[in-house]
Amino acid sequence: MSINHQVRLAARPSGLPKASDWEVTTEPVPTAGPGQFVVAISHLSIDPAMRGWMNAGASYIPPVAVGAVMRAGAIGLVSASEHPGFAVGDYVYGAFGVQEYASSDGTGVIKLDTALAEPTTYLGALGMPGLTAYFALFEVGRIRAGDTVVVSGAAGAVGSVAGQIAKLKGCRVIGIAGGQDKCRALLEEFGFDAAIDYKSENLRTALREHAPGGVDVYFDNVGGDVLDAVLTRLARGARIIICGAVSQYNAERVRGPANYLSLLVARASMTGMVVFDYQDRFPQAMAELAGWIRGGQLVSREHIVQGSVSDFPDVLLMLFAGENTGKLILAIGQG
Amino acid sequence: MSINHQVRLAARPSGLPKASDWEVTTEPVPTAGPGQFVVAISHLSIDPAMRGWMNAGASYIPPVAVGAVMRAGAIGLVSASEHPGFAVGDYVYGAFGVQEYASSDGTGVIKLDTALAEPTTYLGALGMPGLTAYFALFEVGRIRAGDTVVVSGAAGAVGSVAGQIAKLKGCRVIGIAGGQDKCRALLEEFGFDAAIDYKSENLRTALREHAPGGVDVYFDNVGGDVLDAVLTRLARGARIIICGAVSQYNAERVRGPANYLSLLVARASMTGMVVFDYQDRFPQAMAELAGWIRGGQLVSREHIVQGSVSDFPDVLLMLFAGENTGKLILAIGQG
Repeated sequence: MSINHQVRLAARPSGLPKASDWEVTTEPVPTAGPGQFVVAISHLSIDPAMRGWMNAGASYIPPVAVGAVMRAGAIGLVSASEHPGFAVGDYVYGAFGVQEYASSDGTGVIKLDTALAEPTTYLGALGMPGLTAYFALFEVGRIRAGDTVVVSGAAGAVGSVAGQIAKLKGCRVIGIAGGQDKCRALLEEFGFDAAIDYKSENLRTALREHAPGGVDVYFDNVGGDVLDAVLTRLARGARIIICGAVSQYNAERVRGPANYLSLLVARASMTGMVVFDYQDRFPQAMAELAGWIRGGQLVSREHIVQGSVSDFPDVLLMLFAGENTGKLILAIGQG
Repeated sequence: MSINHQVRLAARPSGLPKASDWEVTTEPVPTAGPGQFVVAISHLSIDPAMRGWMNAGASYIPPVAVGAVMRAGAIGLVSASEHPGFAVGDYVYGAFGVQEYASSDGTGVIKLDTALAEPTTYLGALGMPGLTAYFALFEVGRIRAGDTVVVSGAAGAVGSVAGQIAKLKGCRVIGIAGGQDKCRALLEEFGFDAAIDYKSENLRTALREHAPGGVDVYFDNVGGDVLDAVLTRLARGARIIICGAVSQYNAERVRGPANYLSLLVARASMTGMVVFDYQDRFPQAMAELAGWIRGGQLVSREHIVQGSVSDFPDVLLMLFAGENTGKLILAIGQG
């Protein structure tokens, strides 16, 4: 195959991204110049953060330019190499973008140890979602055995790992997710102590029942009403981790947490985190996460959709409709 | 005088407290039983937090009961004593309430060293406002020399001291206040590096000008639009101290900070603080504050209104109208 199909950002969306915000383009498959290699991408990581990358405003990384290939983490096989550190057949992870082939000089690319775990696990529990959960809980949440930890977006890629790590460390873990199937997965697959279905239950009542002593650590992936409800149930000295706000990413105007003055009453903190700050400690964290996976203490669940790069716009919308359980991945049958 | 005039909470207000939310009552002046003393109150502390104490909801201290004497910090002279630790003529501070006379067993009461400072200073820079500024900056804000520190409500009791302490510690200090007179006081009396009049200036533009490298520490006394504006200008790792939210205390519904996701972008934190948590360190902090006052490095400004207890409802409204510069005090001519 000599054609590289790509998905480019055609326009900055307002609200949910729509078909006209994207353009599928083709280019010749790149070749490997000196010091470069080419990756045949097999799996694309589908992330809530992508929505933020599409906006013009400054954030923790620059926005994707209109006309550029959409940014995405991905894994694939090296198909050609003029780089001494990467050989044809190596499985690699990098920010390769929504396309079938990418060339790279190796910057930010890691080689996957496929003896340690399935390649797709490197997009889930052993990848950015797992690392995000890991550093957020230990560095920002400062979890301790006995803490009551509440996780929102709990059936998602980050939330499902966060809840499991907190359990491993002796916390009582309550997950918030949308729908009975996800809540069942929290209890039966991920071993949470309690699950709250925000679509059918009164959140405040359920939190009062499941966290009678208050919430010590709240791992927030969603913002909005859920954040406001948890703010009413904080224990003294609670730590809120602001990891994301998927309920707000497509809103015309973000709604702030009206109950933020609970931070004062509870002497609590709300702190933002970005996983890239901990890059120099990724190897140690991945080794620990891999150990838990091997030991059966940590389940990495991936929700893999089979398709092609042109399915990317629809698969991204699955995230915002809450249709995934575990890490959402688009497998494009390459590599 | 044998009559004790008191102001009691007659009803829980909705919005700004109105006349019918109060009742002025009379009682005989209390006598001192064994282990007790009586205080003739001279000055009442008028605090934004009072508005919160009038609400039914749980907060960091229980609400004032409907029908009870309104809670207030106050100073006065001991006029009768059957308590071994307090003698007639001692100047004391305590939560004596909005009344002319109070009896006490000494719990939570401190004797004022009037050689060290004027009695009213113990309601200002040497009292709860000063202690709040002190512990918030050092314990929550973790200020360091060279930090850019923004203070809102900067001409108020807490803000004016906070800005001065930050200056003493080598920070660059920007105050936000309402009106030209207050801004002039920030620059000329309190020694701030810059002052922003939120009533006449565009806050974001002014912050960009005065804090080009971003805000390291934000001491928030007001919430609302000001908090949202500062959130757009955070430096990496910024600390936001949630000390109060005077713009929201009389609102039907608190407006949350819509820009709170800046915490994520800036890896910043927003933390609530309550001064009572540091009670065991008050003596050391007061000694340090007193030293700065004596040395002319810290100005304690009190805004004293002469009147009687029945003026309390109107004087409280001065706070919410932003009519005070420095610590608002109602002098009731007792003691």
